[in-house]
Amino acid sequence: MVVSESQSVADVCAAARAASRTLAQTDTATKDRALAAIAAALRDQAPEILAANERDMQAGRENAIGDALLDRLRLDAQRLEAIAGAVEQVAQLPDPVGEVIDGHRLANGLDVRRVRVPLGVVAVVYEARPNVTIDAAVLCLKSGNACVLRGSSSAAHSNTALADVAARAATGAGLVDGTLGIVAGGGREELAALATQRENVDLIIPRGGEGLKQALESVATVPVIYAASGNCHVYVDASADLEMALAIALNAKTQRPGVCNAAESLLVHRDVAAAFLPALLAAMDEAGVLIRGDAATLAAAGDERAGVQAADERDWATEYLDLTLAVRVVDSLEQAIEHIQTYGSGHSEAIVTHDALAARSFSRAVDAACVYVNASTRFTDGGEFGMGAEIGNSTQKLHARGPIGLRELCTFKYLVEGDGQVRT
Amino acid sequence: MVVSESQSVADVCAAARAASRTLAQTDTATKDRALAAIAAALRDQAPEILAANERDMQAGRENAIGDALLDRLRLDAQRLEAIAGAVEQVAQLPDPVGEVIDGHRLANGLDVRRVRVPLGVVAVVYEARPNVTIDAAVLCLKSGNACVLRGSSSAAHSNTALADVAARAATGAGLVDGTLGIVAGGGREELAALATQRENVDLIIPRGGEGLKQALESVATVPVIYAASGNCHVYVDASADLEMALAIALNAKTQRPGVCNAAESLLVHRDVAAAFLPALLAAMDEAGVLIRGDAATLAAAGDERAGVQAADERDWATEYLDLTLAVRVVDSLEQAIEHIQTYGSGHSEAIVTHDALAARSFSRAVDAACVYVNASTRFTDGGEFGMGAEIGNSTQKLHARGPIGLRELCTFKYLVEGDGQVRT
Repeated sequence: MVVSESQSVADVCAAARAASRTLAQTDTATKDRALAAIAAALRDQAPEILAANERDMQAGRENAIGDALLDRLRLDAQRLEAIAGAVEQVAQLPDPVGEVIDGHRLANGLDVRRVRVPLGVVAVVYEARPNVTIDAAVLCLKSGNACVLRGSSSAAHSNTALADVAARAATGAGLVDGTLGIVAGGGREELAALATQRENVDLIIPRGGEGLKQALESVATVPVIYAASGNCHVYVDASADLEMALAIALNAKTQRPGVCNAAESLLVHRDVAAAFLPALLAAMDEAGVLIRGDAATLAAAGDERAGVQAADERDWATEYLDLTLAVRVVDSLEQAIEHIQTYGSGHSEAIVTHDALAARSFSRAVDAACVYVNASTRFTDGGEFGMGAEIGNSTQKLHARGPIGLRELCTFKYLVEGDGQVRT
Repeated sequence: MVVSESQSVADVCAAARAASRTLAQTDTATKDRALAAIAAALRDQAPEILAANERDMQAGRENAIGDALLDRLRLDAQRLEAIAGAVEQVAQLPDPVGEVIDGHRLANGLDVRRVRVPLGVVAVVYEARPNVTIDAAVLCLKSGNACVLRGSSSAAHSNTALADVAARAATGAGLVDGTLGIVAGGGREELAALATQRENVDLIIPRGGEGLKQALESVATVPVIYAASGNCHVYVDASADLEMALAIALNAKTQRPGVCNAAESLLVHRDVAAAFLPALLAAMDEAGVLIRGDAATLAAAGDERAGVQAADERDWATEYLDLTLAVRVVDSLEQAIEHIQTYGSGHSEAIVTHDALAARSFSRAVDAACVYVNASTRFTDGGEFGMGAEIGNSTQKLHARGPIGLRELCTFKYLVEGDGQVRT
């Protein structure tokens, strides 16, 4: 039994720390073989995994957790195959460990290189989706990190089954025991215990909503990278190609409204409001989008327009995560930038413009992980950016900003080689 | 009056945040002019600064803070000139802001660049040395960050005078007001207030001892980079050039014993203990170094040797910061690595060896900011590494590891340019 309920959180983390020392030096071929073995085991042992998932589903139905949560919780043959396929894709990504970031020779002859190395032990805490168990585990393994997983109690059987299958496959393929640990209890007590393992955990990545974030903030002494909310804007400049602006606004709002890189607010320069807003409002209405507009937007909508409501200040700060869009008419580029500085969450911000100087001003002034010129905010994603996969999106400024991929799960060390140099 | 005692900590930080937006876009030439103006003002206003310092010195003597602290507190014409000279050196360093870290074109034609940008507002908290006021301020300004300083109350007059001179010079040279703030009170209350300004402070860097670190750990919600202690080792391998090993050990221990990159422990392979230890002990004795040795070291020292005491386990974990060296004889490279994994603080670790495979094993297995092969640990320093200057040395793994220079005071953003791309 790889996953034992009798293990304390401290035991799991200590085992992960011990394993991390070996894993950090395990070569890419061995790690990739382990990932292939995990993918194969997920397919081979699908019946056991689906049976465990059915126990969680049954409990979920009994507890009436709702259709949305049940859907996030549910595994089936197709979803399991998608998870296994994703594991094989991670195996094909380049290994970040050992990459020489930069290097040079000092005046005294010392050769200094910065070499990428794993962080050590990465803990991932997450909510109901069982697929995160495997996604997080394989990103950590590929980047040479031991991994400690803590899912929610509503998915405990699924997570334990998945982690157990993956851990057996990994050790069977030659990875050291303890590489993949799971914290069995899903309660606040286990979360607090995990978040204070400073000696044995190098980083915690929460994947979940504000509740999880707040629960961590109050207790964590281990460094945390929050994949915070995305209150993203599209700004339609006076010089914008209005057809392009419409396509980008629609894409940013409606292509997948429930994710953090979807647009929540649209800012329109006053000079093009009359030309742009009627077409925008019609298209959004057709796409089923509720508009929360300022006075100028309401005026453009006219009396009879359905699906347009008056916005108040709270709208500017709201991450709707559904088919709702706040719309405000601004007097200038500067006002748009100021609005974004005030209400944005530093995730993804877009300008649509023909004006090179406006594009440059916006790019420089907006303080966000990703700033777009004439493109949709929806591209903020490790896969889209060519990083292959991501474990989340960081809106903080230290270490990782934007998509957290394999490189962002690493640190570096300075390797300094000499022939007897001493400091004078 | 640039520095006002009536400003609350929150006011100082809010002003810094506002200033940071302008400063982030201020060009290098303007920033360098401001640094030159600061250097000139430090020279011009030396009498006022030295008078303020004399008030702190007088209070220090009355409070009997001791000669060591008084020396750290003391400014004179020569020290002030050294501070001004250091400002001019920072002005000559390359500006990290705007550096393109990497970039590529995606399959859909989007151009993605990672561009270095300032963090925003950096707070530096420090103990008695008034020179840190200027060192920290100019590193922050050069890297485009607004800066909030909080020194200790024992240096309050000196720090306020220095910050006031620097802030006036900076605004006189065209930098925006609020760029350089100082928290007037040196108490725990002000520290706690500063450490919880999440909205307006992006990073806190403490420069001080364990007391300051612990005071921050318990209250900080702002990200902190701890410049933690350095329990650094020199390991003399079986194949080492013993003359080189002696030179490196002496340099690492005695060249400047009070700093974090000085060696605290020496590990010697059993195969060379008999050949190496007598010469080492004699040289260390001559240099005034007290040895805390294991049994094998004591045996090598012989009965009559002065300056050699029996070590216990606490010695392996102690950062002496003085002329004391723990010495242990190990059976193998592996035991040396294990010792360092157990007791090291992840700062700077050195191996002296002729054996390429031993060098490789040590470099890979030792988890530290800087790993040295055949060189002294004393080189871990922003200046030595060619970074021009540093604000401290990080032993943590996220964001900055090793010397914290101008680049480490920055984050980056993704700039993405397209011609209407939307996600499908």
